[in-house]
Amino acid sequence: MIQQIEFSIPNCSKGFHLVTSQIKKNLPKLPENGLLHLMIKHTSAGLTINENADPSVRNDFESFMNKLIPENDPTYTHIYEGSDDMPAHLKTSIIGCELTIPISNYQLNLGTWQGIYLCEFRNCSSSRKIIATILS
Amino acid sequence: MIQQIEFSIPNCSKGFHLVTSQIKKNLPKLPENGLLHLMIKHTSAGLTINENADPSVRNDFESFMNKLIPENDPTYTHIYEGSDDMPAHLKTSIIGCELTIPISNYQLNLGTWQGIYLCEFRNCSSSRKIIATILS
Amino acid sequence: MIQQIEFSIPNCSKGFHLVTSQIKKNLPKLPENGLLHLMIKHTSAGLTINENADPSVRNDFESFMNKLIPENDPTYTHIYEGSDDMPAHLKTSIIGCELTIPISNYQLNLGTWQGIYLCEFRNCSSSRKIIATILS
Repeated sequence: MIQQIEFSIPNCSKGFHLVTSQIKKNLPKLPENGLLHLMIKHTSAGLTINENADPSVRNDFESFMNKLIPENDPTYTHIYEGSDDMPAHLKTSIIGCELTIPISNYQLNLGTWQGIYLCEFRNCSSSRKIIATILS
Repeated sequence: MIQQIEFSIPNCSKGFHLVTSQIKKNLPKLPENGLLHLMIKHTSAGLTINENADPSVRNDFESFMNKLIPENDPTYTHIYEGSDDMPAHLKTSIIGCELTIPISNYQLNLGTWQGIYLCEFRNCSSSRKIIATILS
Repeated sequence: MIQQIEFSIPNCSKGFHLVTSQIKKNLPKLPENGLLHLMIKHTSAGLTINENADPSVRNDFESFMNKLIPENDPTYTHIYEGSDDMPAHLKTSIIGCELTIPISNYQLNLGTWQGIYLCEFRNCSSSRKIIATILS
């Protein structure tokens, strides 16, 4: 059985945001067992799974990724959409824009410390569309 | 229901190539709802989703990834298959070799700007095998 | 049909480990066609697919990733769990913690040179939990 739900996550500022509860709120009752697939329908924002407890981890992700993939690199040629645009595309493919998460006992089967991050790589974005597919 | 199709994408030069239409051409009629899983059966080429409009994005991907993961790094020990070989392995795991994409209304449910890239990391490759699995 | 199995891989030292056979040993008889999803339930270890033949590839992965994402970067603020902790979180999201692999003819349909790596990013870890989901 396949269920699909499309929803938006509004007003994310640039950075790494823990959105596990926001995503769960948009899903129907989960099946006993299965998989949840999530895709963010954009090319300058990503989804990843990482530490769900300490905000300093998300802050360090933001500063590290900005250093690894800097703005205004002299080799960029795709520059007319702003200095944050090409770095945002690169970050999206390095972090990834889609995830699959097991469902067990009617719940997401994440590890104790695992949460879902929405990674916003642009300075100004309105909201981000996510499509969730539940397989059971 | 599960359908699997194995096909090849020929003659890719080193670089990031938009292959959304080439992949669609190899697939049967898609189901109303489901998921498409794609895996490239190689360790020196990847698959990712990114901007489908401006070729400068793909060019900047190529130059940035070459700078991030250079050839001839003095710490590489796996060097006897050519100077592009170890960087190709590293790029493959950083970009990824498999993707899952939602299917809605008989079509790939990609965002407006999302396309599928085949990322060829070797200088000379003949063709690349892809296995597609459709769940519905 | 959905089957789920949770198991542990013990005693991995820091580094990239080829675990294809260890994972297969923990799975039931595979279906004729389908997908295998694997998630490592941790935020400082990853899963990826790469070269299955030459151990020098895994050694070069370890040294390259340590250089790309170094310990003791002065910008890290999440430092109280050890100098290997924040780099481990970053590596996990760059490499990824989950994979989907096609099943064809009752076997994992990997390319000739593809194997599954468990990527252990901490200096000391006991064992790592993996949840496998088989769709058929």
